[in-house]
Amino acid sequence: MKNEILNTKSRIPKKRSAGVLLLAAGQGKRMRSSLPKVLTPISGHSLIQHILDHLFEVDFDCDVGIVVSHQKEEVIAAVSKIYPDRKIEFIDQGTPLGTGHAVQQAMKSTWGRRQVAERRDILILPGDLPLITRELIEEMASPLERTVSFRMLTAVLPNPTGYGRVVRRGKSGPVLRIVEEKDATEREKPIHEVVLSIYTFQAAFLDLHLKHLKNNNAQGEYYLPDLVKIAAERKKKIVTLAWPEIEDVRGVNDPWELALAQKILNTRIVESWARKGVRFMDPCTSFIGPRVTFGSQVEVYPGVVIEGTTAIGNQVKIGPHVHLRDMIIEDGVELRTGTVAEESKIRERSKVGPYAHLRPGSDVGQDSKIGNFVELKKSKIGRSTSIAHLSYVGDAEVGSDVNIGCGFVTCNFDGRVIEGSRKHKTIIEDGVFIGSDCQVVAPITIHSGAYIASGSTVTEDVETDALAIARTRQIVKSGYAKKLRGK
Amino acid sequence: MKNEILNTKSRIPKKRSAGVLLLAAGQGKRMRSSLPKVLTPISGHSLIQHILDHLFEVDFDCDVGIVVSHQKEEVIAAVSKIYPDRKIEFIDQGTPLGTGHAVQQAMKSTWGRRQVAERRDILILPGDLPLITRELIEEMASPLERTVSFRMLTAVLPNPTGYGRVVRRGKSGPVLRIVEEKDATEREKPIHEVVLSIYTFQAAFLDLHLKHLKNNNAQGEYYLPDLVKIAAERKKKIVTLAWPEIEDVRGVNDPWELALAQKILNTRIVESWARKGVRFMDPCTSFIGPRVTFGSQVEVYPGVVIEGTTAIGNQVKIGPHVHLRDMIIEDGVELRTGTVAEESKIRERSKVGPYAHLRPGSDVGQDSKIGNFVELKKSKIGRSTSIAHLSYVGDAEVGSDVNIGCGFVTCNFDGRVIEGSRKHKTIIEDGVFIGSDCQVVAPITIHSGAYIASGSTVTEDVETDALAIARTRQIVKSGYAKKLRGK
Amino acid sequence: MKNEILNTKSRIPKKRSAGVLLLAAGQGKRMRSSLPKVLTPISGHSLIQHILDHLFEVDFDCDVGIVVSHQKEEVIAAVSKIYPDRKIEFIDQGTPLGTGHAVQQAMKSTWGRRQVAERRDILILPGDLPLITRELIEEMASPLERTVSFRMLTAVLPNPTGYGRVVRRGKSGPVLRIVEEKDATEREKPIHEVVLSIYTFQAAFLDLHLKHLKNNNAQGEYYLPDLVKIAAERKKKIVTLAWPEIEDVRGVNDPWELALAQKILNTRIVESWARKGVRFMDPCTSFIGPRVTFGSQVEVYPGVVIEGTTAIGNQVKIGPHVHLRDMIIEDGVELRTGTVAEESKIRERSKVGPYAHLRPGSDVGQDSKIGNFVELKKSKIGRSTSIAHLSYVGDAEVGSDVNIGCGFVTCNFDGRVIEGSRKHKTIIEDGVFIGSDCQVVAPITIHSGAYIASGSTVTEDVETDALAIARTRQIVKSGYAKKLRGK
Repeated sequence: MKNEILNTKSRIPKKRSAGVLLLAAGQGKRMRSSLPKVLTPISGHSLIQHILDHLFEVDFDCDVGIVVSHQKEEVIAAVSKIYPDRKIEFIDQGTPLGTGHAVQQAMKSTWGRRQVAERRDILILPGDLPLITRELIEEMASPLERTVSFRMLTAVLPNPTGYGRVVRRGKSGPVLRIVEEKDATEREKPIHEVVLSIYTFQAAFLDLHLKHLKNNNAQGEYYLPDLVKIAAERKKKIVTLAWPEIEDVRGVNDPWELALAQKILNTRIVESWARKGVRFMDPCTSFIGPRVTFGSQVEVYPGVVIEGTTAIGNQVKIGPHVHLRDMIIEDGVELRTGTVAEESKIRERSKVGPYAHLRPGSDVGQDSKIGNFVELKKSKIGRSTSIAHLSYVGDAEVGSDVNIGCGFVTCNFDGRVIEGSRKHKTIIEDGVFIGSDCQVVAPITIHSGAYIASGSTVTEDVETDALAIARTRQIVKSGYAKKLRGK
Repeated sequence: MKNEILNTKSRIPKKRSAGVLLLAAGQGKRMRSSLPKVLTPISGHSLIQHILDHLFEVDFDCDVGIVVSHQKEEVIAAVSKIYPDRKIEFIDQGTPLGTGHAVQQAMKSTWGRRQVAERRDILILPGDLPLITRELIEEMASPLERTVSFRMLTAVLPNPTGYGRVVRRGKSGPVLRIVEEKDATEREKPIHEVVLSIYTFQAAFLDLHLKHLKNNNAQGEYYLPDLVKIAAERKKKIVTLAWPEIEDVRGVNDPWELALAQKILNTRIVESWARKGVRFMDPCTSFIGPRVTFGSQVEVYPGVVIEGTTAIGNQVKIGPHVHLRDMIIEDGVELRTGTVAEESKIRERSKVGPYAHLRPGSDVGQDSKIGNFVELKKSKIGRSTSIAHLSYVGDAEVGSDVNIGCGFVTCNFDGRVIEGSRKHKTIIEDGVFIGSDCQVVAPITIHSGAYIASGSTVTEDVETDALAIARTRQIVKSGYAKKLRGK
Repeated sequence: MKNEILNTKSRIPKKRSAGVLLLAAGQGKRMRSSLPKVLTPISGHSLIQHILDHLFEVDFDCDVGIVVSHQKEEVIAAVSKIYPDRKIEFIDQGTPLGTGHAVQQAMKSTWGRRQVAERRDILILPGDLPLITRELIEEMASPLERTVSFRMLTAVLPNPTGYGRVVRRGKSGPVLRIVEEKDATEREKPIHEVVLSIYTFQAAFLDLHLKHLKNNNAQGEYYLPDLVKIAAERKKKIVTLAWPEIEDVRGVNDPWELALAQKILNTRIVESWARKGVRFMDPCTSFIGPRVTFGSQVEVYPGVVIEGTTAIGNQVKIGPHVHLRDMIIEDGVELRTGTVAEESKIRERSKVGPYAHLRPGSDVGQDSKIGNFVELKKSKIGRSTSIAHLSYVGDAEVGSDVNIGCGFVTCNFDGRVIEGSRKHKTIIEDGVFIGSDCQVVAPITIHSGAYIASGSTVTEDVETDALAIARTRQIVKSGYAKKLRGK
């Protein structure tokens, strides 16, 4: 998906352009985290990535500026890493003195000068809106008419408590100013129209009028909403966009609000996939990350957690409590209860679990079976191979039509600490049969068609179609068990 | 339960009878499934089974017809398989041309002619109502008075949007017609009384008046609700049954709606068992199928999934994330975290798990212990036997008072592909002690009281009270470890 | 926490005192449990403990009486066990004849005589209010003015159905009486002010007026709310405390109501920790007991169940479906998917799971790894030690920098039934390397720096830096595998 987005740019060369300014300087003390607020993860992504991902889905050429201050190095590093090919400029706010101050700094920067020079509209977004949607950005970023100084996002709420009220001349006349909850008079408090911290300005308007912002308030800060009054006094035209879905602009101030927002985000993802055909047994206990994709006729049991960039094919069955991250699951695969897998691939029609564990770098071939209490690590398994019970296969290449019994272990580590803890390679060719409770001491190759007797520790390569056996004959001592029991 | 229902027929020979017609011809495109819509599973059963199960709970002799069309062979096969002893007739609608057309075809069939001949009331139900209740069917199927042509199910909704409105003469006079949302006038739209797609007709009324249905509408289809106007014009008496629980007739059109309906259905099941005494720690994450039963004083942790026909006894404790299907769990059993079990039996007071896996055909005796990371398959375990750690017991008969150490494996498969993959049998008699990391190569019998030393691969039968040992003496090479470490 | 509460008593010697009477005589038939109702567990504690815990958080010297009757021995034993150092008196109600009768018996007891003698206020609480808060108790227990006979808790409900209505003179005049739902007239039914079963009386008032209670009602019982009318007729002053949070006094009458109350209680706990910084991925599927504590920057995946007295340190990551009880988890620990652990300790930065199982008495050292399908029992593990796969370590002391391969077993049980089933001890000293599929037959010591070759059953102590090997050399039979396959 990401690549597709990046490519739209080259495919459609002549698009309208706009400036987009993200306010990402806040510390978010109540998050009680060592991370800067906009890097707080939600559904596996940072808050700011959620916004940027939606922004880059919109079909326009956006010139992004991000205002940073608190832990700015971390914000810059994180954003640059996720979007290496995007033109994003970072503006250092220095000591943060309010949203108005943030925009003032941005407009003084080369980013800001460019917006003015190119007469762009500038969309201003807080950096911590985890539930913002592409649709909202699209609407707010639609071009301003020449006569309009700016557009602001509003909502009409049954209970406006806590929000800044939109004061108009008369009931529905031009907007006069924004009044914060604490400053609202008894006549203003019942106003149901509130402002939602997202604006689109003409660059020229900002350039001219930002300097009129005052910091004569309790906090000594410069507030962006004060531009409303400044504009109104100068008879500038302001338009409002009333947004019906207040949740889209829900902010998060502490981990509880984050958890609630994440629940809503997750429900949106689950609903979206269910509408497309995924059969979730329980819409409330399925956790699906934003970069997970599903094919058709997939069934998902309760309690599943799917993270990262995971692609699920068609007709896949996902049992209860399965946990996946960065997986490729092909068509017809069955993942049984409690299977845990990451950074691996499971090919068509294979059955995995219950309680199998695929560590990074595993690749299970078609029609194979990885059974209960089996751990795979950096191993490639062929077609129609069975590793059904209680085994550890690490750093191995296992062929097709191989049958591995219960309790098998690839001894890939010999304990030598010199030159780091090297892991040795095991190769098991096609058609090998390995009995139960066998170990192979790597590096080793079991050639095709070989047969390893149960209970063997195999330390040397086994040739094609040979039988290897490494165990002691059974000795029986009659009546001795009684003695052992002390009778 | 099913048998009980079937038997009521023979026990109470003289009951009133009615025809019941299910409309099951729809494709349900938005379900995006290869299954016909009425076979969509919900809580482990198909939609149509949910309706039929409730129908057969009602104390009357019902003569069931099912109108089929899309993927009719699959619908017929599925229904016939679930209710082999029921008299159910299938009517092929051919090309579906609306609900009226479906009923027309039904009335022309031998099923329809029989209803007319026997002057029955005919209850008509859509085939896709997952939340319908016995109570609703009972009320709708109660006998019509001779003067009444039909009864229709209605509801009074605060927000009637999307439903067909019931238009009456005056406010509460006789019903005149049904108006669909899209055809409703501004005076009709505010009507809160809506129609809910369930009707009971006198067979004679249908026989006479179905032919008056017209298909002069956008879709060119024949609609059953048009019978309301036809009846009203002919001064026929229509009665309405206003149903207070709108959820009972909730339809499902896509997998999201299905997931929501399933959540409601599950909550109803959980509430019903909780009222009877089951102590669910969390009502929202316990998934209990409709054919699961519980004894008294059962405790259920969060995240449990219980499917199929599972019977839980008294004073059973079910830990978090346990997953059961088609199990019999006797009194006093403790199922610890993450235990997965299907088609097996666990007898009184046994403790199983955490993370035990019982595959089909297992039977755990009284007071036994099946511990963590243990897999059982087609195995009978006696009383007071312990298999506590990391073992695979397949195709085995294990006696009572047996102690099996950690890492035990029944080697039941010898890899011979000729004559199919045969699995061999292991017999372990009463009082046997098996040390850790032992394997027995089947077919094999370990006779009563025998003792197998740790680390042995046992390939031949062991006699009563004998000690079997099959391992090598330990060799110690002083100082050699240093050399291995490369020092 | 408990100790802290107990100590407040000694630290602040001169506090105001009050009597507190808990009504704990009820059977709670609809709970369908063999336990007396007040011992019904919720979130791991009994209902009565929930109340007493909150009561003892309040900063006053309370003289607690508990009225018991049904299964009184069990109630007395349970309460005495939890609060061994508290002065709690139990009053036997004998045959229970209503709440008024319960208080009558209490006032006749030495506990009651003492309250009268010391002129205390008496707070009366039902014993089955799982959601009561410290705040509510504090407000209700605040000292009564001398002129006030009693205070009663009330609420104003939009829908008062089912509750006793507070009848006043005029709209807001003095309280005249309480009218039960069933006795309410058409004029009384619409009253929204209801009574909530919690009262604070002057001891003298109870002493004088309890005798006026009558049992001339259908049940032949004496009801406490009748004291309202008795007081009003005698012109005694009654004050009401209107409580805004009706859920705080939610009672529970059957396991369904219990499950709902538990869900609310759990959500309160989760919200409280989230506000303090814990990052729950899902607020709805995290189950956190009331005696669990968290450090800073903890992340919790969905489906986690944490019970008992569990302390989680800073920067701990808890994966999906982890289940803990009575654990100490130090800073930086990572608990992976499905880890189950109880009565154990995991030290700094260790990684445990997925699907590890720590049984009671385990202690995992710093920077160690306990991997998948590993069971620990009564074992101490040192620093930087790895037990990464499919092993059972029981009754062992394992040193630091030890590497234990896959499939390791401590054979701690020798099957001797004489003198009980003794378990033997395994000692593995620092720096030992144990290959895969090894067993050590306890009692045994593997001295520091020793090396055990894969596949060895070790039965005797291994000296420092020695290599121990106990396996057979591998024999290879060329072409023999073909024969085995029957070709």
